[in-house]
Order: sequence, then C-alpha cells, then structure tokens
Amino acid sequence: MSEARLESVTPEAAPAFPPGIAYMNGRFMPMEDAKISVLDWGFLRSDATYDVVHVWKGRFFRLDKHLDRFIRSVEKIRLALPVSREELTRILAECVERSGHEDAYVEMIVTRGVSPTFSRDPRDAVNKLICFAIPFGWILRPEEREDGLHIAISDITRIPPHSVDPTVKNYHWLDLVMGMYEAYERGARTALLKDDEGHVTEGPGFNIFAVKEGKVTTPDRGVLEGITRQTAIDLCGELGFPLSEEPVSADALRMADEVFATSTAGGIMPVTTLDGQPVASGKAGPVTRQLIDLYWKKHDEPGWSVSVEEVLRQAV
Amino acid sequence: MSEARLESVTPEAAPAFPPGIAYMNGRFMPMEDAKISVLDWGFLRSDATYDVVHVWKGRFFRLDKHLDRFIRSVEKIRLALPVSREELTRILAECVERSGHEDAYVEMIVTRGVSPTFSRDPRDAVNKLICFAIPFGWILRPEEREDGLHIAISDITRIPPHSVDPTVKNYHWLDLVMGMYEAYERGARTALLKDDEGHVTEGPGFNIFAVKEGKVTTPDRGVLEGITRQTAIDLCGELGFPLSEEPVSADALRMADEVFATSTAGGIMPVTTLDGQPVASGKAGPVTRQLIDLYWKKHDEPGWSVSVEEVLRQAV
Repeated sequence: MSEARLESVTPEAAPAFPPGIAYMNGRFMPMEDAKISVLDWGFLRSDATYDVVHVWKGRFFRLDKHLDRFIRSVEKIRLALPVSREELTRILAECVERSGHEDAYVEMIVTRGVSPTFSRDPRDAVNKLICFAIPFGWILRPEEREDGLHIAISDITRIPPHSVDPTVKNYHWLDLVMGMYEAYERGARTALLKDDEGHVTEGPGFNIFAVKEGKVTTPDRGVLEGITRQTAIDLCGELGFPLSEEPVSADALRMADEVFATSTAGGIMPVTTLDGQPVASGKAGPVTRQLIDLYWKKHDEPGWSVSVEEVLRQAV
Repeated sequence: MSEARLESVTPEAAPAFPPGIAYMNGRFMPMEDAKISVLDWGFLRSDATYDVVHVWKGRFFRLDKHLDRFIRSVEKIRLALPVSREELTRILAECVERSGHEDAYVEMIVTRGVSPTFSRDPRDAVNKLICFAIPFGWILRPEEREDGLHIAISDITRIPPHSVDPTVKNYHWLDLVMGMYEAYERGARTALLKDDEGHVTEGPGFNIFAVKEGKVTTPDRGVLEGITRQTAIDLCGELGFPLSEEPVSADALRMADEVFATSTAGGIMPVTTLDGQPVASGKAGPVTRQLIDLYWKKHDEPGWSVSVEEVLRQAV
C-alpha cells in the first residue's frame, strides 16, 4: 500500500471543559479526563439512561427522588447499575466534595457499554457507570427571571411514548435540538414540542405548566416525569392551587394567565412569550412567583434536601 | 467537609476493543484510544450523524454514495464537516491502510461537540469529526446464510419521520434496542419495527424487502435510505426484477415468497422466519440468491468499488 501518511489534518479547536470531577472506571478524575470509547453503545446507539440532581449551597435537593427514578430507568431499559444504591450515593457526594462546588449540577449515567467480543448483541455489553459534578447550569438565570423565557412552539413532533418511553430519562434529543434551531430563527430562546395529537409536551430539558383562573395544568403524557415538575405539583398542593395533569393544547397555553417551565437546570421559570406573543401581561404572574419563592425556600429544609457532608458522613 | 475519600468502587471489567485505527482531534490513534468527552453533545443529546462504508478485499464499496449521504446528513442537522470531502476521503483510506484490514467496517461521525462556554446552545459547539476502521462486521455471516435471519416483528413503533428525519443516519436506537430484547425473548435473532400505520419500517441496522410473484417491494417511508438498500434496488434493475418502493404491511411480508434484509454489515441477507413462522419454504429463495451473488460480484468492479491504495495515491 501507499507510503503516504497523513500526520495531521486541520484539527478542531481544543474544547474547554467546565471545572468538575467525574467518576468512571472505578475512580475519580478531572472532568476533562472523563471520556468514553467512541464504540460505547451509549454513544453509537444512544443506549443509556441518566439523571441529574442539583446541589444548592452544599445540599442535594430531592436526592432520593432522583435516585428512585434513575434506578427505575436503568431497569426499564434492561441495564444493570454496576454499584449499589448506597455506593452510587457516596460516589455522587464525593464527586461534589472533590469538585469544591457549593452549587452543582450532578449527573449520573449508565450506558450499555462495549461488547468485549464486538458482537451486535446488547446482552453481551459490560454496562458502564459515569457520574460527574460540574457548576450548576441554568436554562434561565435568576437575573433573567423578570424578562422570562421566550418560547417557540415547534411543529416538530416529540418522539412518541410508543417509540421511546419518555419516563426513562434519555438522550434522544435530535427532535429537541432541531426545535431549538427553529426557535432561534423565530427569535425565541427555546422550543416546546407537540405530540401527534397537537398537545404540547416538553422542551429541551424542561416541563411546561399553564395557569388559568387559578387552576394549574401540566401535560400528563408524552413527557419526562421531571422531578422539578413533581416538585411544582407538590408545591401547588402546599399552596392550595388546584392542579390537574391532563392534555394541554397549544391554544390553552397561549390563552393562559401564566405559563411556567420547570427543570433541574434552573427550577421554576416564568414563560413570558409564546411564538413572539406575550403570555397575558408578558410578565411573571403571581402563582409563578409564589412557586419560585417556595421552591428556593425548600432548598434548606430537611426532608427536601440533605447536605453533601451528611451524605458522606453516613457513608463512612 | 468530610475527610472520607473513596479511592475506588467495584470497577467494571475492562472492555476489549476490536483492532483498528481511529482518526480524531487531527491525528490517528489505536482504536482503544479513541474516546470522546462524556460532555460531548453527540453523547449527551445524541446530536450527531454518521455513515458506514465497507472495504472488501482492499476496495471501498460505493464510497461516493456513502460520502454523498454523509455530507447531506451533516448539513440537514446543521452540523459542519470540519474537513473537506477530499480530506475526509484521505482520512478514511488512511484509517484502513494503517489498520491493515483487508475487509473493514469504516465509520465516519460528526458530533455537535462541546460548547467552550458550556452554554446550552448547540450553535456554540465546536463540531467534531471521528473516523475509524475496524474489522468488517456481519449481521449474518456467510456461513449462516443457509439458516438465514430469524426476525420478530415488534409492536414498538420506529421513531417517526416527523420527530427525527430517518434519512439522516442517526443514533436514535433505543426503540430498536428494546425491539432486540423482545426478539431474543421470542426466540428470534433480530427485530423489525413498524410505523404508526402498521407498515413495517426497518430493523437495527438493516432495511427489508419482500418478493411476491417475482415483484420486489421495500418500504418507501420512515426508513433510512440505506446504500445497500439502494444497491439492492439497482441490482433488481440490472437483473430485470420489477421493484416498487411502497408501504409494506406485516401481512404482506408474512405471505411473501421471499424476504431479505440489506445492510452494509453483511450485504443482502435471506430472512427465513418471521415471528417463528417460515417465510414460504423457510429457505433463501432464487431472487435473493441471485441478488447476493451479483452483490458480491460488484465488489471488484470499477464504478462500484475503488481500491484503498488508489484513493491514497490520488490523495498524494
């Protein structure tokens, strides 16, 4: 064969990584060293599930609920968690402690992994656990809260439940990413996708709620059952706002008195425009404001949160 | 914070990698060193496209068609190929040459990459090219051809085109993987998924064809427009078999005289049972056999194939 050898071809710019600590292959490492094989089926088949819990002022928020969902997701798609729940908890806490972050975004992932024989059979793969703690990320920063989220309702259909179970938190996001590009072109900040019956579902990383005449509604199907979504439901109960999980049309959203989004990456966030039109007055409404306040208050209440230190102490 | 530090927790078994050569970050490397950041959106959002061309006895098969489709896929999902088509061609050939494989499975991938600011905006990401050459992989090995493929038709719906464009070769495979598990439990080797109208679509890595009374049909929508699918269509033309791209029902498949599957990973493959029932006689039929023979004959014909050596010579 030819002796010609190409040593280098226009390398891409070296990426920067957020400061953080990852755990994989049985050890902790700086974020920039956390890499998976390009042959991992978590990548080549998006055959993986994950969860994200956040740490705020040194305390995990609703850690048990995230662990419950993660373990359910792992089982539902026939993966096996390579460690016990207790070990996983320790690993997550130790990622945070080693990172030094007081406010952190803490992700846990199980991928199908790689088949040692490179067979095509997922049963042959060695499942892989990856955890990491990086700085807390926001879909909408607190200082942007007054302006609120500007959302474009996309005509792209969210991947339906009869194809991929949305209650298994998954990385099947191309529909959401294409929705984001469409939203940018329409002057919005993010997108909301509909199901094949025209009801709204979810956006990239968030659930959606409408408030009309004091009653709160949120889609009941075709969506991730977000922990922040559940928290908003719980807080509506505490504040005495009637709430219903039911199909929500794009028009119901447009005619709502208030609209808000929920995500681990930012909590409860006012949505102030839909497709360029203001939602009611175009400002965060009173129900949304009360929910936001209570949401952040819960962050240092035992029962809702637990300190990273305490988790580590219990693990010793 | 606690001084307790966890140095190691039950590491998973170290994976084995197929022998091969990868190209990424501007250089060539052994397959086991080809790793992407766990923060790459190609992984965290399955925001990537790819293509696979094969090399048989030192010759690429229909390389131009794979490059055409790959470049179209990259554009369709708003990625940018970080190198020119000519550079990509050289890189692929050099992966093969350096690997020493005479028969190879050659994959090219562009991922969205990582945002240098860790923003959530895909427009901020630095797109990443990954190429690799590993040993040729088979869905059905030649020595298994007489037994043929045993397929279970799943009730899981293939992710629909209005969610993710199937003509963009993508890694949204959880529906296919869940279909595989279901197939194993039903005693089959692989799965075939339907669309929401009940027509068959595709399986994990293959397209499907039926032959009835001399006429060949293959689904016209909701499927990857496979290069091996196109090759089978072209070869039907050459052999004078009438062919139609049209919706194909599961029943039409069950009542066919012959069924075959097509994939870069194995070429044209007889399907001998569907849901445990034999297709016609349960043996590879005459149309399938003629197509298989002609398919492999084309592998050393100029116009259909080009030697890796020649590609490298042209690139010097």
